[in-house]
Amino acid sequence: MQLTRHTDYALRLLIHLSQAEGHRASIAEVAAAQDISRTHLMKIANALVHAGFLTAMRGRGGGIALARPAEEINLGAVIRATDPHCALIDCTGCRLTPVCTLPKALAEAARAFHASLARYSLADMVKPSRHRPETVRR
Amino acid sequence: MQLTRHTDYALRLLIHLSQAEGHRASIAEVAAAQDISRTHLMKIANALVHAGFLTAMRGRGGGIALARPAEEINLGAVIRATDPHCALIDCTGCRLTPVCTLPKALAEAARAFHASLARYSLADMVKPSRHRPETVRR
Repeated sequence: MQLTRHTDYALRLLIHLSQAEGHRASIAEVAAAQDISRTHLMKIANALVHAGFLTAMRGRGGGIALARPAEEINLGAVIRATDPHCALIDCTGCRLTPVCTLPKALAEAARAFHASLARYSLADMVKPSRHRPETVRR
Repeated sequence: MQLTRHTDYALRLLIHLSQAEGHRASIAEVAAAQDISRTHLMKIANALVHAGFLTAMRGRGGGIALARPAEEINLGAVIRATDPHCALIDCTGCRLTPVCTLPKALAEAARAFHASLARYSLADMVKPSRHRPETVRR
């Protein structure tokens, strides 16, 4: 069981931006910092803008940033938005389909999975910095 | 989010055998019925024998069968055994690792997922047959 690469990179991008403390980042900057291709990251950023998690501004002083504070971005919502086809299995062509109740059990388990993630915000995804220097805190 | 193909096929094989009502099936028979390659299915059957879910007997009258009644085979246990690397993401190379708590949140969610599945046995994965003919019921 694995999240899609799209979701994985979306989470990396959001967590990275949650650390940016208000300044807008460029795709190139995040791509270099997270070692993800710019083209791939651009697609992910567009999807996250479309889903309402990011805002993007063009031009000088532009870039991407969280659309709202990290405390208000729900982890479960991000994963549901970026990995909507959470069917877990593809029953296409399976001969057991007429008698099988596995999809129902898996759907229940997926709901339990999402309910667990929904208890967290994006802000919870970063360890608290105990000894953050005064110059940075200001 | 998707189960591995290995887990998907293992579940198909087990559900198929739960319907076999005690008779031993051959790999060829299940491969044909489920439209899975014999080589692939043989590997999966070997893994399920090793994990204690199936028994295999060679020779005339041999074949594979559930190691115990379907009611006693836990769905959560099958998925844990066939998809043990349930890390959901691969953090290798991610620059956020020193500050990131996402793996902890995902591990909690995976536990909720497995706890949900653990409420079911293999026998629960097949719809009850309301109008099973008398000749089959005996």
